[in-house]
Amino acid sequence: MRFSLLALVLVLPLSASTRAQSVPSKPEVVPYHATIESVKYVFGVAAPVAHLKPGNILEANSLDCFGNAIKKPGDPLTLVKGDNPLTGPFFIDGAEPGDTLVVHILDLQVDGNHGIGAFAPGFGALNQTNYTPMLHAPLPEKIWFYPIDHASNTATFQALDSNYKVKIPLHPFLGCIGVAPAGGEARSSIVPAEFGGNMDAPEASAGNTLYLPVNVSGALFYFGDGHAAMGDGEIAGTAIEVPMKARLQFDLVKGKHTNWPRFENEKEIMAVGAYRPLDDALRIAYTELVSWIHADYGLSELDAYQLLSQVGKVHVTEMVDPNYVVIASIEKKYLPAKK
Amino acid sequence: MRFSLLALVLVLPLSASTRAQSVPSKPEVVPYHATIESVKYVFGVAAPVAHLKPGNILEANSLDCFGNAIKKPGDPLTLVKGDNPLTGPFFIDGAEPGDTLVVHILDLQVDGNHGIGAFAPGFGALNQTNYTPMLHAPLPEKIWFYPIDHASNTATFQALDSNYKVKIPLHPFLGCIGVAPAGGEARSSIVPAEFGGNMDAPEASAGNTLYLPVNVSGALFYFGDGHAAMGDGEIAGTAIEVPMKARLQFDLVKGKHTNWPRFENEKEIMAVGAYRPLDDALRIAYTELVSWIHADYGLSELDAYQLLSQVGKVHVTEMVDPNYVVIASIEKKYLPAKK
Amino acid sequence: MRFSLLALVLVLPLSASTRAQSVPSKPEVVPYHATIESVKYVFGVAAPVAHLKPGNILEANSLDCFGNAIKKPGDPLTLVKGDNPLTGPFFIDGAEPGDTLVVHILDLQVDGNHGIGAFAPGFGALNQTNYTPMLHAPLPEKIWFYPIDHASNTATFQALDSNYKVKIPLHPFLGCIGVAPAGGEARSSIVPAEFGGNMDAPEASAGNTLYLPVNVSGALFYFGDGHAAMGDGEIAGTAIEVPMKARLQFDLVKGKHTNWPRFENEKEIMAVGAYRPLDDALRIAYTELVSWIHADYGLSELDAYQLLSQVGKVHVTEMVDPNYVVIASIEKKYLPAKK
Amino acid sequence: MRFSLLALVLVLPLSASTRAQSVPSKPEVVPYHATIESVKYVFGVAAPVAHLKPGNILEANSLDCFGNAIKKPGDPLTLVKGDNPLTGPFFIDGAEPGDTLVVHILDLQVDGNHGIGAFAPGFGALNQTNYTPMLHAPLPEKIWFYPIDHASNTATFQALDSNYKVKIPLHPFLGCIGVAPAGGEARSSIVPAEFGGNMDAPEASAGNTLYLPVNVSGALFYFGDGHAAMGDGEIAGTAIEVPMKARLQFDLVKGKHTNWPRFENEKEIMAVGAYRPLDDALRIAYTELVSWIHADYGLSELDAYQLLSQVGKVHVTEMVDPNYVVIASIEKKYLPAKK
Repeated sequence: MRFSLLALVLVLPLSASTRAQSVPSKPEVVPYHATIESVKYVFGVAAPVAHLKPGNILEANSLDCFGNAIKKPGDPLTLVKGDNPLTGPFFIDGAEPGDTLVVHILDLQVDGNHGIGAFAPGFGALNQTNYTPMLHAPLPEKIWFYPIDHASNTATFQALDSNYKVKIPLHPFLGCIGVAPAGGEARSSIVPAEFGGNMDAPEASAGNTLYLPVNVSGALFYFGDGHAAMGDGEIAGTAIEVPMKARLQFDLVKGKHTNWPRFENEKEIMAVGAYRPLDDALRIAYTELVSWIHADYGLSELDAYQLLSQVGKVHVTEMVDPNYVVIASIEKKYLPAKK
Repeated sequence: MRFSLLALVLVLPLSASTRAQSVPSKPEVVPYHATIESVKYVFGVAAPVAHLKPGNILEANSLDCFGNAIKKPGDPLTLVKGDNPLTGPFFIDGAEPGDTLVVHILDLQVDGNHGIGAFAPGFGALNQTNYTPMLHAPLPEKIWFYPIDHASNTATFQALDSNYKVKIPLHPFLGCIGVAPAGGEARSSIVPAEFGGNMDAPEASAGNTLYLPVNVSGALFYFGDGHAAMGDGEIAGTAIEVPMKARLQFDLVKGKHTNWPRFENEKEIMAVGAYRPLDDALRIAYTELVSWIHADYGLSELDAYQLLSQVGKVHVTEMVDPNYVVIASIEKKYLPAKK
Repeated sequence: MRFSLLALVLVLPLSASTRAQSVPSKPEVVPYHATIESVKYVFGVAAPVAHLKPGNILEANSLDCFGNAIKKPGDPLTLVKGDNPLTGPFFIDGAEPGDTLVVHILDLQVDGNHGIGAFAPGFGALNQTNYTPMLHAPLPEKIWFYPIDHASNTATFQALDSNYKVKIPLHPFLGCIGVAPAGGEARSSIVPAEFGGNMDAPEASAGNTLYLPVNVSGALFYFGDGHAAMGDGEIAGTAIEVPMKARLQFDLVKGKHTNWPRFENEKEIMAVGAYRPLDDALRIAYTELVSWIHADYGLSELDAYQLLSQVGKVHVTEMVDPNYVVIASIEKKYLPAKK
Repeated sequence: MRFSLLALVLVLPLSASTRAQSVPSKPEVVPYHATIESVKYVFGVAAPVAHLKPGNILEANSLDCFGNAIKKPGDPLTLVKGDNPLTGPFFIDGAEPGDTLVVHILDLQVDGNHGIGAFAPGFGALNQTNYTPMLHAPLPEKIWFYPIDHASNTATFQALDSNYKVKIPLHPFLGCIGVAPAGGEARSSIVPAEFGGNMDAPEASAGNTLYLPVNVSGALFYFGDGHAAMGDGEIAGTAIEVPMKARLQFDLVKGKHTNWPRFENEKEIMAVGAYRPLDDALRIAYTELVSWIHADYGLSELDAYQLLSQVGKVHVTEMVDPNYVVIASIEKKYLPAKK
């Protein structure tokens, strides 16, 4: 898989002088406001809520993974109408199957004053779930409230069973970000897969660029499930769940396809694998990274394999969704100049 | 599992004033020199090569994972007589089953001027192996030589199929470090498990302390398989393989047992899980970390589970050995004071 | 999960006197003829091709998994326009979410004079695939033709690389059988999951009854991917692929839901699990079977668990599709009388 | 892997005329009586309890997996001193590394009047274990007694939580059967692996022949863990556990090695894979079977792969031990004449 010169330019969003050559000096900003009435629960084909041109900047909000239904301590999970309500879909003008959609994540801001952590039914790496069922009684439902302090940029964990508090630095990112799947499929907003989706990837944060396959005309982009911070594996089944304000800029790589989502910034290239078990997610991520290095940076596949064995990085973003997500990455300083 | 006050002291190896209270001001240094004649290939019960007292410092070398048999470009893997030759075993005076062996890794130095990377038969995350067999022809045997520059503290990757070189910073660690297993078992030096072994953990580096279960009298400590640097997953099956000089200090926690290996330094506590698939290795690592936090830092198990969902870290050290290794960790700044 | 008395009656399709009480003595037969123009490639919501009432018998055909495109030796897989073309969907009058659809498989006949086996790209348990990718070159594309002898009820395997032939008894079944998924999802016809789908289950054969969850009004039933015979695991990625003529009778259990597909005949109850790895598919199948025994036959869950440890059966139907399928079963002779 | 003509003869134990040519007309019978004092808990190198020549018949007993410690209802599992006590080791004269040990299982008789089923700590496919740990409370310890009726050849399951009984036909087999491992390893008697061990394979029953790799001089054969009957997967962690009387005849295939255990009888060849997850155990079993067919019956590997896709069988013997066991088999009627 090889991205064109255009891609090379587009993936350097932080370089103002370079960007000036590829996008208008004052990109058009498209605002959109999502509500519980307009959200979707499936990545699939649906009527677009707005159209965007390549180069446009979207400014929109997302509800938290509970649809903002849990408002105060004591509110039960039964108030939640659907998991991971999605903002969108957005129709990207000119996107056609076979293209790659480029999403520059310019800014993310937590849109509220608290976050929520919970044991959601059927989720969790250390308890039985719908797909790893056992004969134990389920763990009790519990909800943790995390006050957000915008001044110090922290959330506060407050233990339920003892008198302990600690501040956690915010790292806002979008748990859900993706497009309509290929082959006429439609997938729940709790699923990560080739189309992106519920990747729960902290890599989906400000300063990074995401590449997604375009599978239908207009790509039909969705996002949601904002996280104020999250540990590797998201093991209890939730991050610090928050509503979010997002500022995203879109571009297209015409005629180039990506099999799986990819992230990039000035320092790293990062390939996503989403499957079960983690072994296969890791294999997908690393074979994609080998292909990427081979195609764009010119090393042979076996040299790339060997180099990654010494300097590759693995990030297990979550092991709780219907597919597990691994991101394999390498710092660009270890790579030859891009072809 | 709870470590005594003694443990609390012992795990702070970098704090001179604290250490002064727990060990003699001039610990005895025991030198040992390993050769191809004295190495072992199994973690098990064998005649000790030396005895050490708690507080003693061992200064010893290890051969590389090929027994130092690959000396120059063109040397084939058939020269290798056994994988991962181990230095040891060392008998720790006073260690009895049910105790925990404490290993302070004081210093590691690459003992040579080149490292080796290879496709070892049956190893590799992106090719068929003995335990994930397929009907494909195996990948060709290949060996990469990495010149070591001690002045700049780097190794140099040199591509085989193109004219590309890049320097990689050294991070020396011991791929093999462990004791005799429990229950009369003896395990190959390529296996990581409850007794430690071939964990291929970059956490086994200078400045960190390792806790291992004592399963037999004297613990019978071994080490080897030095790595100059390694990527997450060790995906091609080898790191930058090197002979090593090690400086290790031993202590004991009497009457406290650890189920699985644990690492600690001033900033983090780190729990090891070793199994297949990675899913189960991760479950082991994180449940051990939950237990550790609950026992030593007093959070309830469910509070610990929730907190790790927000700030826990996962490190996939290798996905190529007979068991895969995951290390789950948390920074101490997020924990209450130790009980 | 407990089925009503109505279900008890319905699941005894071979007992004429009992059936006489539950369905009209001469059930209406609805014929339908599928062509390459009318087939679908997704289990999801689509305009029904016909309506059926509970008790009706559907007589319809399905194309083979290649859309009948491979007609003679030498025809390449590039002729195939889509995998697993589905006949349907059929709207079952009165079926509403929360009901269970009952499908009595009355008769299946191979609809042609040859079957096809192939290495399909990305499929196979002993070669790399899209979801277990490696760096090996793919296995070569190959196609085996299996002449069908209707008189002896056999297909003939003819080796490609030697002069060897052997007859294989036919066991016709439907590789694909299922309904529209829950939650607005639409899934490719190569996927097995909660809605049934590409289970590749030899249990989907004449004489067995299949229970499926109803997720949308009318259930929207599909079938296809006929197999003349298949080994456990379908390891090379295909069975003996054939067009099929099917005779299916439908019923409903109103107000009772099944989480996963279930099969039943006079002698056995059989629960389906579909996931990755096989470990989780097995856990799903066996926990569903424990629940079934507990709910319908009155044993406690732990007694059922223990009994299955002594007399349960496991069938790995396939390990090649995006989810793997395990069917856990028990002979009714080991169970108490149904409640 | 190809077995010699000698092997061809040896693997037909039920054919008297053929056997007459390969073994003495009156084979020597070696009796041995195991007690709790003489049993071992590890497959490894230990002083032999007896020597046997090829052709000899061993008549010996084994204790049940609890060391016969559970004698009456109410006896707790704490009475058990070690799991799976092994009878042996037996030194097979002339066996050298690189040979294959042939074990004809001539007869097995349950050696007592009751069997035991239990939830053993850390075992079970539908509950958390040491290697799939979770944060749930463990299931309660429970023991089921199964009266054995030798006249009707049945064991009786008696529910603990209701008034229900049912008879189960006996199928006596050895849960543990194996030799000392390769490479100086020693493995617990709860582990199945390349050396055989705790395979929990109902295939280890009268009428079948087992091939095991010889890894040390004399092979050092062990057996134990008799089962009166067992369901696929042994999901609750135990079969109907019984003491056993065994009649076993030994032979050698000199200079031919088998990588993994293999079973054979007049009708089938059966290859064992033991690993985690089940996916890899299945891959091992089926690739071994492909190799066996290719080497001994002359089909190309790809023809064998295709044929198994149509007529191969998979047996999941257990999913509860440290490694899971899958046996892949094919009926000989589908194979060409043996080379």
